[in-house]
Amino acid sequence: MKEKIIYFLKEAREGYVSGEEISRRYAVSRAAIWKYIQELRGDGFDIIAVPHLGYKLVASPDKLLPTEIQYGLKTQYLGKKIIYENMVNSTMDVAFRLGMEGAVQGTLVCAEGQTNGKGRLGRTWSSPKWKGVYMSIVLRPSLALTQVTQLTLLAAVAVCEAIQRVSGVAARIKWPNDILVMNRKLAGILTELSAETDQVRFVVIGIGINVNTPLRLLPLTATSLKEETQRKISRVELVQEILCLLEQWYERLQKEGFDGVVQRWKELSSTLGRRIRVVDPSGDVEGEAIDLDGMGGLLIRNDTGLVISKTAGDVIDE
Amino acid sequence: MKEKIIYFLKEAREGYVSGEEISRRYAVSRAAIWKYIQELRGDGFDIIAVPHLGYKLVASPDKLLPTEIQYGLKTQYLGKKIIYENMVNSTMDVAFRLGMEGAVQGTLVCAEGQTNGKGRLGRTWSSPKWKGVYMSIVLRPSLALTQVTQLTLLAAVAVCEAIQRVSGVAARIKWPNDILVMNRKLAGILTELSAETDQVRFVVIGIGINVNTPLRLLPLTATSLKEETQRKISRVELVQEILCLLEQWYERLQKEGFDGVVQRWKELSSTLGRRIRVVDPSGDVEGEAIDLDGMGGLLIRNDTGLVISKTAGDVIDE
Repeated sequence: MKEKIIYFLKEAREGYVSGEEISRRYAVSRAAIWKYIQELRGDGFDIIAVPHLGYKLVASPDKLLPTEIQYGLKTQYLGKKIIYENMVNSTMDVAFRLGMEGAVQGTLVCAEGQTNGKGRLGRTWSSPKWKGVYMSIVLRPSLALTQVTQLTLLAAVAVCEAIQRVSGVAARIKWPNDILVMNRKLAGILTELSAETDQVRFVVIGIGINVNTPLRLLPLTATSLKEETQRKISRVELVQEILCLLEQWYERLQKEGFDGVVQRWKELSSTLGRRIRVVDPSGDVEGEAIDLDGMGGLLIRNDTGLVISKTAGDVIDE
Repeated sequence: MKEKIIYFLKEAREGYVSGEEISRRYAVSRAAIWKYIQELRGDGFDIIAVPHLGYKLVASPDKLLPTEIQYGLKTQYLGKKIIYENMVNSTMDVAFRLGMEGAVQGTLVCAEGQTNGKGRLGRTWSSPKWKGVYMSIVLRPSLALTQVTQLTLLAAVAVCEAIQRVSGVAARIKWPNDILVMNRKLAGILTELSAETDQVRFVVIGIGINVNTPLRLLPLTATSLKEETQRKISRVELVQEILCLLEQWYERLQKEGFDGVVQRWKELSSTLGRRIRVVDPSGDVEGEAIDLDGMGGLLIRNDTGLVISKTAGDVIDE
């Protein structure tokens, strides 16, 4: 009901909505509406009430509330079901558990903060409360196990484009899944999955973005959108844009295959064409990053001219 | 304590063990020992008690009790921790949950029966109580996502060899993971996993074998070891042999790589050299099965001479 009232108030834009109108529309008593308005104020909505005019929404809270994310969201299935938490251990763990329990494709878990935000390879992701975007999405793709890396690259493309659209910051992708501005980490993508060897059951894509995070709350090598633009960026708008682009690219992957994603990834990449070293327990490789292979692996030409494909590891600039 | 008493009685072989000896060895009262003996009899152990001589184990129950499996088990870590259930939904689900909770490598889940035994691709596995082996093992390999198929082939080799050793039945492997006798299904292997895109967290290998199962309890295309040999086969011995061979092959994979497994798999294969069709949602392929590729995929030469690699699908004889 609270969601419906917010929707109604938002639709009225600059105008007032009388308690009587809401009461008639949703068949709820005016006393009950007053109670919901009080609760919404408690949630952080700034709603004024003027006698004989009614209610008006002046400002929404700076929270990733499902009502906010879903208002005007132009997706078919991404984010149609949202699990919103104030604080979680990790949105990945919540989403993975939901995946195990059969959550529908597109289920979104987002939180205001994480006590144990996850990065790749068991690392952590700084997740100060109310400052960043910490979200995980359950997908059920028809992909072979060997194709799952494609989703990580796809998500990097969508996040990179969404950042550009919402903030104007031209971020670049460092293989396989970091999003950087001038070599400082702005966002990261983590892909987890549950599978049989010949069938993926579900994939969870996790996205962490430093949005309005002050540098003092971040690792030394990180930056945030606020730091880059010197203004506050709407986290809600950013999440909406990510969901929208992610769904578009995901649909395109399923219909047209991986080529389009690869091409766009290359345009946004800061890794290709550079001399790098990939550090990985199975063996380091040093040379020029020349291309992606069909699976999303990085092709490196070493000094003897041999081209080697790496599917895992960390890229270090030489 | 019951496990210790059984161990003591087994060590005595044909002899008797006095209550006093057990009492002294484990510092338990003789009255308590009497109580444990009664419980063990309830579990199905046939223990006789003769005045002035003591206790003697005449027969163990035909159950997959951890005490039975672990007695004389020659492994380093496989089966050192056993979760034994009378009936479960599926040993895969129990083991997967344990994997999520951090179960150590080698944790074994076995059950006398399954109400919802799992086969590949969402199929079921007939699991009548006390008749078959239904087991799942948690492994934590250092493998890339693309290498997990290797474990399925490895498990097929170990199970095939264990069946031969314990029953004398010369079963053959149908790609990727069925174990057949004269085209009738004797055993199946299912591999599930949880992973990040660049790091496998854990793998669960499930093994189902029709051991003493009467044909009337099985699908039409199946057979059992009892049917093939016309005698009752020890399920405990079979599980022990599987654990032992699985650990040997697993160690070998990690030390020497996949080549040795592939070579042995080929010797045991009923698929290679045959004209087949692989049926798979991503597209059927028809031709001669000529080899395995380095990832465990099946290489098929079609009628135009093109060699195609399949990583998933069902093999149908042409």
